Amino acid sequence: MAPGPQNAITDVAGVKVGHTTLIKGDSVRTGVTAILPHGENIFQQKVPAAVYVGNGFGKLAGSTQIKELGNLETPIVLTNTLSVPTAMNAVISYVLDLKENEDVRSVNAVVGETNDGYLNDIRGRHVSEEDVIAAVENASEERPKEGNVGAGTGTIAFGYKGGIGTASRLLPESLGGYTIGVLVQSNFGGILQIDGVQVGEKLKQFSFSNELLNNVDGSCMIIVATDAPLDNRNLERLAKRAFLGLAKTGGIASNGSGDYIIAFSTAESMRIPYKIENKLLSQEVVPNDLMSPLFMAAIEATEEAIINSLFMAETMTGYKGRKIDKLPVEEVLELMNDRN
Amino acid sequence: MAPGPQNAITDVAGVKVGHTTLIKGDSVRTGVTAILPHGENIFQQKVPAAVYVGNGFGKLAGSTQIKELGNLETPIVLTNTLSVPTAMNAVISYVLDLKENEDVRSVNAVVGETNDGYLNDIRGRHVSEEDVIAAVENASEERPKEGNVGAGTGTIAFGYKGGIGTASRLLPESLGGYTIGVLVQSNFGGILQIDGVQVGEKLKQFSFSNELLNNVDGSCMIIVATDAPLDNRNLERLAKRAFLGLAKTGGIASNGSGDYIIAFSTAESMRIPYKIENKLLSQEVVPNDLMSPLFMAAIEATEEAIINSLFMAETMTGYKGRKIDKLPVEEVLELMNDRN
Amino acid sequence: MAPGPQNAITDVAGVKVGHTTLIKGDSVRTGVTAILPHGENIFQQKVPAAVYVGNGFGKLAGSTQIKELGNLETPIVLTNTLSVPTAMNAVISYVLDLKENEDVRSVNAVVGETNDGYLNDIRGRHVSEEDVIAAVENASEERPKEGNVGAGTGTIAFGYKGGIGTASRLLPESLGGYTIGVLVQSNFGGILQIDGVQVGEKLKQFSFSNELLNNVDGSCMIIVATDAPLDNRNLERLAKRAFLGLAKTGGIASNGSGDYIIAFSTAESMRIPYKIENKLLSQEVVPNDLMSPLFMAAIEATEEAIINSLFMAETMTGYKGRKIDKLPVEEVLELMNDRN
Amino acid sequence: MAPGPQNAITDVAGVKVGHTTLIKGDSVRTGVTAILPHGENIFQQKVPAAVYVGNGFGKLAGSTQIKELGNLETPIVLTNTLSVPTAMNAVISYVLDLKENEDVRSVNAVVGETNDGYLNDIRGRHVSEEDVIAAVENASEERPKEGNVGAGTGTIAFGYKGGIGTASRLLPESLGGYTIGVLVQSNFGGILQIDGVQVGEKLKQFSFSNELLNNVDGSCMIIVATDAPLDNRNLERLAKRAFLGLAKTGGIASNGSGDYIIAFSTAESMRIPYKIENKLLSQEVVPNDLMSPLFMAAIEATEEAIINSLFMAETMTGYKGRKIDKLPVEEVLELMNDRN
Repeated sequence: MAPGPQNAITDVAGVKVGHTTLIKGDSVRTGVTAILPHGENIFQQKVPAAVYVGNGFGKLAGSTQIKELGNLETPIVLTNTLSVPTAMNAVISYVLDLKENEDVRSVNAVVGETNDGYLNDIRGRHVSEEDVIAAVENASEERPKEGNVGAGTGTIAFGYKGGIGTASRLLPESLGGYTIGVLVQSNFGGILQIDGVQVGEKLKQFSFSNELLNNVDGSCMIIVATDAPLDNRNLERLAKRAFLGLAKTGGIASNGSGDYIIAFSTAESMRIPYKIENKLLSQEVVPNDLMSPLFMAAIEATEEAIINSLFMAETMTGYKGRKIDKLPVEEVLELMNDRN
Repeated sequence: MAPGPQNAITDVAGVKVGHTTLIKGDSVRTGVTAILPHGENIFQQKVPAAVYVGNGFGKLAGSTQIKELGNLETPIVLTNTLSVPTAMNAVISYVLDLKENEDVRSVNAVVGETNDGYLNDIRGRHVSEEDVIAAVENASEERPKEGNVGAGTGTIAFGYKGGIGTASRLLPESLGGYTIGVLVQSNFGGILQIDGVQVGEKLKQFSFSNELLNNVDGSCMIIVATDAPLDNRNLERLAKRAFLGLAKTGGIASNGSGDYIIAFSTAESMRIPYKIENKLLSQEVVPNDLMSPLFMAAIEATEEAIINSLFMAETMTGYKGRKIDKLPVEEVLELMNDRN
Repeated sequence: MAPGPQNAITDVAGVKVGHTTLIKGDSVRTGVTAILPHGENIFQQKVPAAVYVGNGFGKLAGSTQIKELGNLETPIVLTNTLSVPTAMNAVISYVLDLKENEDVRSVNAVVGETNDGYLNDIRGRHVSEEDVIAAVENASEERPKEGNVGAGTGTIAFGYKGGIGTASRLLPESLGGYTIGVLVQSNFGGILQIDGVQVGEKLKQFSFSNELLNNVDGSCMIIVATDAPLDNRNLERLAKRAFLGLAKTGGIASNGSGDYIIAFSTAESMRIPYKIENKLLSQEVVPNDLMSPLFMAAIEATEEAIINSLFMAETMTGYKGRKIDKLPVEEVLELMNDRN
Repeated sequence: MAPGPQNAITDVAGVKVGHTTLIKGDSVRTGVTAILPHGENIFQQKVPAAVYVGNGFGKLAGSTQIKELGNLETPIVLTNTLSVPTAMNAVISYVLDLKENEDVRSVNAVVGETNDGYLNDIRGRHVSEEDVIAAVENASEERPKEGNVGAGTGTIAFGYKGGIGTASRLLPESLGGYTIGVLVQSNFGGILQIDGVQVGEKLKQFSFSNELLNNVDGSCMIIVATDAPLDNRNLERLAKRAFLGLAKTGGIASNGSGDYIIAFSTAESMRIPYKIENKLLSQEVVPNDLMSPLFMAAIEATEEAIINSLFMAETMTGYKGRKIDKLPVEEVLELMNDRN
């Protein structure tokens, strides 16, 4: 399938992404990435959403309400494991302070994380509420930066420097013409496989035989956006396919991994207003039978977003002088050329 | 809340119920109850549906496909535990043989059960495919018979004779004007409570101290129908409330209980055609915020349907000469009057 | 079944409860309640646990990791909806600062909430990290205070002042001799029913017809502790039964309700050490077939804990001069006597 | 990781597999495959088990009881979609007729399926109860036949002839020394990928552009056996990883796919006796932290089992003269050599 014009989650019209990157002194290598489904007041104009838990060794906030009500009412924020509460506080502040929300007393802040505690002084909890607000406020519809930015600043994947990655797929008109965009925060183990080539094996980066990988409390956060009008049930099915995309990169969803996929639909016809004016919501939804192309698009875009996160990351030295090398891109490209 | 005109699941327009009651010789005390969401070809005109598993010590067939696709494509059939496969075969035959279904090669037969093996020679598997087809074909929109009929012929609840029960609730126009109808196959333990009166305690019918109850491999099948336009997610939430209704009768969902609730919507606007003509399904759904009255209606109707199943059942003697008394109705009514 | 000596969650040996009650000026009516499964370092000595989501309109933190790993590694903290992140930060600090935890980089803070925004200036987020730490540190094995204390300071249930409540049940030796203790933070709607008496109806406190109830963003947090050696699967089944106890008080789990049950086992043989010394964990677990008495105990203790929260609460005036009356205890007792 | 001695599910000690292959006339191309966890009375000696639903467009029988009770009490039988009820009846008969089971009145028959209706006259329901019993009774610990045998006789995968496949992995002693065995019934679509090589793309076998694939009501049943002592929770996690193995072959879990994974443990220490003699079950379980190698083994063995099913299948002509070619093995091997 073809990628969208930006090959990014921002190909889904209206979706915005913002980063705050925190690289300070020897020890701070972390940050915040915010994903906004649309440019309006998201609390007043909720969007259908779903969460799929690949492996739940993680601290994602907000999942049970998404499951129950089928919608998302805040930006999605990604950060490091121990900064989730601070990010939640910031998201709550952001929502309470929006115009029209003066009487709001309940906010389901959705915050995901991975653990960057190898390169970052995670116990120091260096992310501030201001850092989170900044990521939300600088969000734009431009192609988001990838690699060592935002919530991906200090992450590690397959023994190499990981980070933020994004990709998209555009369905042909005959299959609905929808766009699927994915953004990942990669921070997990396994044996790296790129477009089928056993890169990890050839570069001798194994799990289980490799202290580093065993010590990384890995995770992968995956955000799937689409303009296809999907309800919560089919969004959950879509989210589940993104997990299959992770598998194709060599991820195994190890015991210590917090692998969560959040999927949402930006279709205007599916918006859920906070204040109900009618006793019925009119919707137009994609029927089950037409979901398979969307499933394939989600798999492909997730696989590519993870690979992009590796290709775009740079070698990073951080906490306690620890250093994680970038993917040896030239060597990898050679391996891949050999294949052809 | 007020009951509907029949105080039965058939108050939901279009819903039909049929029974086959099998009382033969000393040993056969079983049967079949069929619930049809509407009078048309249900495979061609599927309805939104959901299953909630209260306690899964049971053999309900069809649940995973309902969960995945959010719909029901066959009548719901209830019978005894060991006759589920025979009933499934009959349901498949019924669907394959319907006009327009000549090319159908996959049918998700939905069959529930409780275990009537105390009064019925259940190992004899005395239900035939013809018995099942008969229940489907004699289904009507009239108020279904209750007590020792159909799938309730040999069941036991709270140490008394259980069976089929039904009830309904009608929401006031201001709350949507919807109808909720419930049908149960009661066959479970606990300490009976009727409208708050501790009947089981006063009549000295305890669980745990009572051999009989401990030996009964109990279960309760609950079918919830509504004309409210609900999707799978809100139908599952509705089904969960029916489980709360069971609790109010004194049910505890014991380890050996197979307590399943199937909920479906008959709203025409929510039908899912087998053959898709458009790339989008237009729907009008009840928003989350307006669900609470439906929840209360489901709780009330379930509680009453279970109680009705007890009030309408008669003393039964069956397999190996075992006898289960009917609820001592007069004594119970006295207990309830004392309360006032 | 008989209650334990304290008729409280603290009847489960080792369980400690602490409160911080915040009543300040005209507007602050909130607080914190902490439940500790045992007196040791809970992160190093995790306990088996499970979460059951009754209705997920709530912000419970930590549920997906409990589900995935089957255990609890922090105290459980209850507070108000918008103070969840602050409480999480405090729980994380508490765990990071415990001896032996110097290298810990990942903490699954478990924090529940209900919305006290009618009586409390919830948008002001008046709970501090110190308040949370104080509740954890003042926790004791004494019977916890009930009513307007801790996380129950500003809550409302059935139109009356709700709060913290607790109760317990002791199984006879023949059924295992185990203790089940429950603690609730009651803040939800419905039509109050006490031991079967329709109190809400008789006192004319209806949902749907009553502005107040409709406006309350209700919820009920329920904590179930037991010394029975149960694994995650049977703890989840136990948690589900507590939801049935809620039903018996007249709760309907309305759309806006965040009803969560967290169950854990304190059995020493089931502890999960952070640092694994052996390749296998030896366990002794209660088999499925012996669970039913535990189920009944959980239902009874939950029902009573909710009722206790109402009986022990006092009339409260708070935010914007709003006032919520206590349950008219004498009138209620009269209604209940009339019944006998 | 290294395969076991047979590279088959039967490497897990005690596991037996049996087939009944039905090739009759022009139209019958179907069969039965039975998997027995051990050689004793499985109802009396249940084994821990779990089901993971990859995509639930399928008719797997028995899943809710496995989830609730965490165990398996019958052989697992695989067949075609419309023969599930007949197979269930046979499984029930088999269990009822075993010695010691004279009083059994409830049996949770576990039967999976895929839809072989392209090559097989599935509406004819040609599988008899005797065929099912035969597969159970001829089960042996020898390496099971693969390809067009048993339940794989008429199946199609990636546009080629699919069927039964099996593989295993053996963990090094340092990681526990456990064996993981997988058996699949492959009948699904996607774009075939073998050890990373895009075989489907190079052979121009696409989904979506290919009538045949779109018309196949695909599915994949995956059975995972291990001698590692795992409880239901970790078996479910293991089952989920098998789904990742499917992804690595190019499977997308399309809308019409019924992808189910059943995992069970044969560890003697984890057996669950039907008749409880003690109030506690003693168990030794693998801790969470040691699960990752098992996860990787399940992924690898599933991927290989699916590929094996393709390599071992032969071209088949069946119902209505339809013909499905076998994988062009030499061409594929060439493609794969080109890669190196």
